[in-house]
Amino acid sequence: MSAQIAGTPIVGVIGGGQLARMMQPAAINLGIHLRVLSATATDSAAQVIPDTVVGSHEDWEALKAFAQGCDVVTFDHEHVPTEFLEELIKLGVAVRPGPHALQYAQDKILMRTALTEAGIACPQWKEITSEADLAAFGETVGWPLVLKTARGGYDGKGVWLVKAQSEAIGVVNQIHEAGNRVLAEELVLFTRELAAQVARSPHGQCVAYPVVKSTQTDGICHEVIAPCPDLDQERAARVQAMAITIANTLDVHGMLAVELFDTGSEILVNELAMRPHNSGHWSMDGAVTSQFENHLRAILDWPLGSPAPTSPATVMVNLLGKDVDNLHSAFRHVMARDPGIKVHLYGKTVKPGRKIGHVNATGGNIGDLLQRAWHAADYLTGVIDE
Amino acid sequence: MSAQIAGTPIVGVIGGGQLARMMQPAAINLGIHLRVLSATATDSAAQVIPDTVVGSHEDWEALKAFAQGCDVVTFDHEHVPTEFLEELIKLGVAVRPGPHALQYAQDKILMRTALTEAGIACPQWKEITSEADLAAFGETVGWPLVLKTARGGYDGKGVWLVKAQSEAIGVVNQIHEAGNRVLAEELVLFTRELAAQVARSPHGQCVAYPVVKSTQTDGICHEVIAPCPDLDQERAARVQAMAITIANTLDVHGMLAVELFDTGSEILVNELAMRPHNSGHWSMDGAVTSQFENHLRAILDWPLGSPAPTSPATVMVNLLGKDVDNLHSAFRHVMARDPGIKVHLYGKTVKPGRKIGHVNATGGNIGDLLQRAWHAADYLTGVIDE
Repeated sequence: MSAQIAGTPIVGVIGGGQLARMMQPAAINLGIHLRVLSATATDSAAQVIPDTVVGSHEDWEALKAFAQGCDVVTFDHEHVPTEFLEELIKLGVAVRPGPHALQYAQDKILMRTALTEAGIACPQWKEITSEADLAAFGETVGWPLVLKTARGGYDGKGVWLVKAQSEAIGVVNQIHEAGNRVLAEELVLFTRELAAQVARSPHGQCVAYPVVKSTQTDGICHEVIAPCPDLDQERAARVQAMAITIANTLDVHGMLAVELFDTGSEILVNELAMRPHNSGHWSMDGAVTSQFENHLRAILDWPLGSPAPTSPATVMVNLLGKDVDNLHSAFRHVMARDPGIKVHLYGKTVKPGRKIGHVNATGGNIGDLLQRAWHAADYLTGVIDE
Repeated sequence: MSAQIAGTPIVGVIGGGQLARMMQPAAINLGIHLRVLSATATDSAAQVIPDTVVGSHEDWEALKAFAQGCDVVTFDHEHVPTEFLEELIKLGVAVRPGPHALQYAQDKILMRTALTEAGIACPQWKEITSEADLAAFGETVGWPLVLKTARGGYDGKGVWLVKAQSEAIGVVNQIHEAGNRVLAEELVLFTRELAAQVARSPHGQCVAYPVVKSTQTDGICHEVIAPCPDLDQERAARVQAMAITIANTLDVHGMLAVELFDTGSEILVNELAMRPHNSGHWSMDGAVTSQFENHLRAILDWPLGSPAPTSPATVMVNLLGKDVDNLHSAFRHVMARDPGIKVHLYGKTVKPGRKIGHVNATGGNIGDLLQRAWHAADYLTGVIDE
């Protein structure tokens, strides 16, 4: 299926998850034709995007056929091999973010190296190639410390907290045997986690969303408060500037999310994501321009939309699968109790711990918003029944 | 294609126009599966709804096949014969709004009769069946007066302003020869036009949106200001109560739009629409719950969302086709000039005067919002080039 109307841009999205799905409302409004490369015909995004191509992002022929005819190709996830993206560019396809940027979201050692060179504050880190490396790094930062696979981790996977050299050696060997590299980081005793999102377009325009407070459960983002409470303006502006510096340094096109540790004194970069991100779902109901609209505008090199909040605060709580299969069964109670709550479902079958949706509550009083959002999330997933 | 996830409601929408299209973002968020019956595979809604069935709403077999398997059937337009809807109900299909209500949106003489019986203020009116009727009514209300076809008119079509009996007789004969009935109404010298929208669910819950000011060009809605400026609270509440009374009296399920004349002293009902309506497009960017979300919630008999505005005012201006084919060519200028403007395109080929999209501007100062929205609309359609 191709676009029918003069000038309609065709955006190819690689990956059929909820991030691709949530681009579709913004695309509908702006008259953008989305084409999605999805592992199955029933993935989250495939359910709502007519121009769905079933195929794997690891199959070069499928990827090439998918990308040709797209005005620009972008991503639902960061797992496409950069070699393939380089080949697409040689064929004349616009890929945004490009592989020159995406490599830093795919490989944590590359990311730490680049950020450190750019003078961006990170936890102390070292690549571990030997037992001697490990011992020396343990000596420097103390135990416990954190080990990560350089590539392939997400949502808490690929991360280990290790208490001693003996335990750490096993993890290091396991990662090396799997053909991956090992990044060691100091354990940061943070008081809270922050996230800063910017959109950046190829011609260099940047807009920064308000810095948010993010709370994880078992390594999965669970709650976001936007803007972050009790963060003074000067510090918030410094964090936004840090995110803009990273976007410029790495030449990111599209949305960039920077996850950060706030230790009270320092603010250190934890992770990067170069796509719409869970920490920005609040923007769907709480900002003039959602992260999904700004991602599309950025990769099309259109001027960016205002990231200003539309109300004093928004709280987002993720719906993480429990043992209730049918989330709609709770809609009546949740909607009757709170006519202002905004429910977002991803069309995913429920599995324990799986992200299956989120709720947003907007208003003035953060305590009230937290209560509203958590009640809705807990009722929808079956944690509570009243 | 059927819905995959436990409990996913399937909503069938008859008609593939922009109103069906704009239901899709709300449906995506709420995990509702839309199925659309569209005249072609490339209609406005068909472009963005995977489960598109190509067929005519006037073809009983097509309609029946479409409706079976839907949890509820609703409408993009009001042109489906009520006999067909009655038959669907006999087959066990939930049709909302039902034919018992929809008939009043299809037939202006039925509508005037019902509203007059319910004590709702209307312009003076009379069905014209003879020259004597016409002469008597002209004597009562004076000339010029308005003639309308009872059925089938929209966007200014099916409406004549006639100056004298001699001219009127020609129009009356022409309508009668086409097999339609004739409604005559006094010409109301209004100072402005208003619109009041409510959502109503089968179990009887109603929410009322703020009353808006609507401005028409050649019978087509062109500009909406929400809420209506200089309308005192008591009068606004009275208009909202009138719309709720109409929704209750006619037992409407889903969105009801009531278009009204404000003469300065009186407020009189002009037209009704039982679906999302152009006068409510502002709600997509200016209300907690858009009219499209509340239409879906109402027909599914879910509790309704808050119709409260999210900012002091929103101005909507329609994009009416001129001679520029490619609306995207103007996006860069419009978006760079105003990062807060919200553009909505319908995926329609441009024809002179055709509704091809709209823009919304939200903020505090109505003069400023009017300037912003009109500049964007005029630039996008090629009326101005700077």
